[in-house]
Amino acid sequence: MPEMLEGPALANPDSLRYVPEFNLIMRSDAPDVDKVALVQGSGSGHEPAHVMSVGRGMLDAARPGDVFSAPPTDYVYETVKLVASPKGVLLLVNNYTGDRMAFEMAQELSEADGVRVRTLFIDDDVSVQDSTCTVGRRGVAGNFFVLRACGAAAERGADLDEVYRIGGKVNSVTRTRGMALTACTPPAKGSPLFDLPDDEIEMGVGIHGEPGRRREKPAPARDIVAELVTAAADDLPFAPGDRVALMANGLGGTPIGELYLVYGLAYRQLADRGIAVGRSYVGEYCTSLDMAGCSITLVRLDDEITGLPEDPASTAIRVF
Amino acid sequence: MPEMLEGPALANPDSLRYVPEFNLIMRSDAPDVDKVALVQGSGSGHEPAHVMSVGRGMLDAARPGDVFSAPPTDYVYETVKLVASPKGVLLLVNNYTGDRMAFEMAQELSEADGVRVRTLFIDDDVSVQDSTCTVGRRGVAGNFFVLRACGAAAERGADLDEVYRIGGKVNSVTRTRGMALTACTPPAKGSPLFDLPDDEIEMGVGIHGEPGRRREKPAPARDIVAELVTAAADDLPFAPGDRVALMANGLGGTPIGELYLVYGLAYRQLADRGIAVGRSYVGEYCTSLDMAGCSITLVRLDDEITGLPEDPASTAIRVF
Repeated sequence: MPEMLEGPALANPDSLRYVPEFNLIMRSDAPDVDKVALVQGSGSGHEPAHVMSVGRGMLDAARPGDVFSAPPTDYVYETVKLVASPKGVLLLVNNYTGDRMAFEMAQELSEADGVRVRTLFIDDDVSVQDSTCTVGRRGVAGNFFVLRACGAAAERGADLDEVYRIGGKVNSVTRTRGMALTACTPPAKGSPLFDLPDDEIEMGVGIHGEPGRRREKPAPARDIVAELVTAAADDLPFAPGDRVALMANGLGGTPIGELYLVYGLAYRQLADRGIAVGRSYVGEYCTSLDMAGCSITLVRLDDEITGLPEDPASTAIRVF
Repeated sequence: MPEMLEGPALANPDSLRYVPEFNLIMRSDAPDVDKVALVQGSGSGHEPAHVMSVGRGMLDAARPGDVFSAPPTDYVYETVKLVASPKGVLLLVNNYTGDRMAFEMAQELSEADGVRVRTLFIDDDVSVQDSTCTVGRRGVAGNFFVLRACGAAAERGADLDEVYRIGGKVNSVTRTRGMALTACTPPAKGSPLFDLPDDEIEMGVGIHGEPGRRREKPAPARDIVAELVTAAADDLPFAPGDRVALMANGLGGTPIGELYLVYGLAYRQLADRGIAVGRSYVGEYCTSLDMAGCSITLVRLDDEITGLPEDPASTAIRVF
């Protein structure tokens, strides 16, 4: 949907540029010779990820595919060309088969042109280790924290290997678990993507409607949040004494009042485990069209990771 | 829902305070003797309005009612007591019968205590002039611009009459028009609030599901936006040469990608009328639970109104 990319550029004419021939959005001031360039893309339908995450301290460019489809390799390649700086380009890719293929091939094409490129895969979803839909764990809302840290490091002048190291470190201490109350409806399909009866919820759903761990009857919010927190916290595992960033992310159709309910319950359940919340994020960061549901993301903070999200950043929407 | 107010305070412990005995949220540093205090409240279900609009440059306190119900007078009165400063208190009230009654009575009670109070009614919705549901025009998403201007003026040290004047001026040049694709579902009801068939849309819907001007068959986005822009622009009327703030507000269930589509179409249709967009707002500002739909708000900018939203402000969520 070109309008989805054109809109943020119209609303931010000084900082963002829409490039219609490649249907991508980029910083007006890219390429910046003094910083590593960051590029993302994935299927559309997850906004504000990633097309509304372009800006200072965040992405240099984003090139989405169609709804829930990876962007074509040649367009990723053209995107890299447009923002490539002498310090190199980091591709941040959620871990799905199609996205991996598109970005790995784009990396090869760019390297043949002499551009320095590295690719970091993000795989924060604890729900499913492997399935017919995935190659290892999926990348979901935790993507935001990896991007925010890499964006800050790049602005500080870190080189490509250092930005890659920081992103990998954040990814390694980030865990997400989601749940859905309803399916989503892709515009081209016009009907729900999968069948989820009114009296069932899907625990561990993927952001493209991939099956989760199981379906169950609706439960009190406290119990649902306990299941999300437990799955995410036990996976790393997070331990008593840890300090974390806590994100309550909406999947598209859930009112922010309910996200704050989820946030508050998770906050207290973490406190009961001896885990303190050091940074808080409540809202829509990575959606699945109009799906009603949410995810909980935990990031273990240390001195290095805590400081990075405090650096200035600005995008079309304010999400941090 | 107490959790909805407790969550923002938990996430922002340095700046926000939840007061359980009155189920309200307020700035930690209120009352500030050097500024006019701003108070809002309305039915719940419109978040981030108003409970997530408390903070520097915005509200001093918010006390919501139940879903789509005005807050009880005595709680509004207690809220005013908590934040009352020697410079006075401005109550910002969307124009609905229940809210008018609750806040007007709270003003009387507070004045009897010697507190200086004024009440400003906001009525930006062009859809319905009067009906069995309303007392004159309704207040909807344009509330944000009135609040933002009053908040900035109060921080700058303006006195009560001046803050009231600025708020009234912004309200007088603000026009909003909304539409719904689906009804919303209040949690206590558990089913859609009104019946809107899949093959109909409601033009001019209210944020509590009040009937609009008419129902029609779904049309291309361009035509729907044209109807919203025309209704809002012709009402003031906005004229060629005007410079406006343009808001594309989501009603709760509409993905932000679609809001940017609406924004872009409105931007170009305004340009065709010779109206330039000077400030842009895309996202959820005033919702109706999980309703799928949107509204367009136009504000005529002049030198005074343009500058105010540039002042610093901070709330639980970043909406400006």
